[in-house]
Amino acid sequence: MIDRKISIGIVAPGRSLDKSIADRVTALSGNSAELFFHPQCFLREGHFAGPDEARVDAFVQFANDPGLDAIWFARGGYGACRLLDSAFERLGEAARRKTYLGYSDTGFLLARLAKEGIGRVAHGPMPADILREGGEAAVRRAIGFLSGADGEAGVEPGTRVPGKYAAYNISVLASLIGTDYAPDLSGATLLIEDVGEYHYRLDRLMFTLTSSETVRAAAGIRLGRCGPIPVNDVDFGQDEEEIARSWCARNGIAYLGRADIGHDVDNKIVVFGERSASV
Amino acid sequence: MIDRKISIGIVAPGRSLDKSIADRVTALSGNSAELFFHPQCFLREGHFAGPDEARVDAFVQFANDPGLDAIWFARGGYGACRLLDSAFERLGEAARRKTYLGYSDTGFLLARLAKEGIGRVAHGPMPADILREGGEAAVRRAIGFLSGADGEAGVEPGTRVPGKYAAYNISVLASLIGTDYAPDLSGATLLIEDVGEYHYRLDRLMFTLTSSETVRAAAGIRLGRCGPIPVNDVDFGQDEEEIARSWCARNGIAYLGRADIGHDVDNKIVVFGERSASV
Repeated sequence: MIDRKISIGIVAPGRSLDKSIADRVTALSGNSAELFFHPQCFLREGHFAGPDEARVDAFVQFANDPGLDAIWFARGGYGACRLLDSAFERLGEAARRKTYLGYSDTGFLLARLAKEGIGRVAHGPMPADILREGGEAAVRRAIGFLSGADGEAGVEPGTRVPGKYAAYNISVLASLIGTDYAPDLSGATLLIEDVGEYHYRLDRLMFTLTSSETVRAAAGIRLGRCGPIPVNDVDFGQDEEEIARSWCARNGIAYLGRADIGHDVDNKIVVFGERSASV
Repeated sequence: MIDRKISIGIVAPGRSLDKSIADRVTALSGNSAELFFHPQCFLREGHFAGPDEARVDAFVQFANDPGLDAIWFARGGYGACRLLDSAFERLGEAARRKTYLGYSDTGFLLARLAKEGIGRVAHGPMPADILREGGEAAVRRAIGFLSGADGEAGVEPGTRVPGKYAAYNISVLASLIGTDYAPDLSGATLLIEDVGEYHYRLDRLMFTLTSSETVRAAAGIRLGRCGPIPVNDVDFGQDEEEIARSWCARNGIAYLGRADIGHDVDNKIVVFGERSASV
């Protein structure tokens, strides 16, 4: 634990945040952390929290700010992939000394940060989770992790043992497969989750993941939660775990059971990369 | 033109067909073609037209049948990707002498047929299009193409000139990118279309396509129709053509204008591969 307040900078690479969310999250931050919401979080342009340039600039500015200890992504919702081709060559040394936390659409950025070895990268709750029923617990888990105040308490149990880990939204990871920005998952236990996708779409997504060298290089897959799943005009005939199991079996990937992550208040934190034995 | 009736075998690699559709399509087949609906088309198991094995077997049986001149895919709807890992090593010489026609989800099979140089591969209407208002025109276009009776009449105008062509549903092509089954698009004019995807999803799909070497190897992209597009809680701010144009520009791919394909009765036929100058 660190005896000064940790400084956390918040930017929104996808959709925008309501000011009221910032206020509610700040009220929960306690004595261990000070939150800085970049004004870009509250911009709106069409679907996004401001134009691509504004989202890139805010991310780069905060990542390069030596006074900030962590970057916390405000919200998902789509848009982070549009930062990939221009933000990263502008990151400097201060960006390497930070923790980055987010999930869902922000996985596009987590993937590239992890691939380039920039900072400590983690998959977990975001400020917008305060809007969920019981969302305070998720937000407190994130702040407790970023500030160091909670130690390992918020970390996904299966990832507390030595090994290599990565966690992604299934749709986001599938969108990255085959692109210039595909992550390096070799030897990693891959935790995946999704939300709001029909079973037939999850099946198609699992086809893409498990039919790629990128995912076949992983040590295995653990399946987080995928609910709520919309009802289709015909029942798919398999639930999400059967879908994951069967695609893993088909493509020679170890299916390693369930994971405690998902688009919900129980979403635990997964730290990317190698974790060595504690001493 | 050929003076005997062309024999067309119909199989359903994804969802099942109602028997009434087979009857209506058969009634339209006229004197130039005889249609054979494989009984597998009418099977139902969960989401699919029978289990994977039945769908693989029907496809392989008809593709290998020397008495059939063409394989016409009955319908899309999801499921063809589940045939990719077991059907193709069973295809023999007779499969190479056929025309294959379908679109949407059946693009998974078109991709592999084209990649392996099996038969003449074409993107165009399917029997289930009879259910659309005015769908008879789409079905007649397909039969006229398969039988040879219509010459070039049903072929997408921009693809009648010398060049190399391929056509895909955007979601299906994105699902193939980075997998063992990604198509070879090098030097091809790529025609793409989709249906029922939110603008933000089309944007994410275009990110995947244009950020991949697979699509960057193409000579350029022509955009078919993408409607109807669901209304999102916030307007995206760009229409589908602006989305396609901007991703092409971002990734150095030539945007070559619109294409006359889509999930509708006007869906024209695109023959895959090289087309040389007519003599």
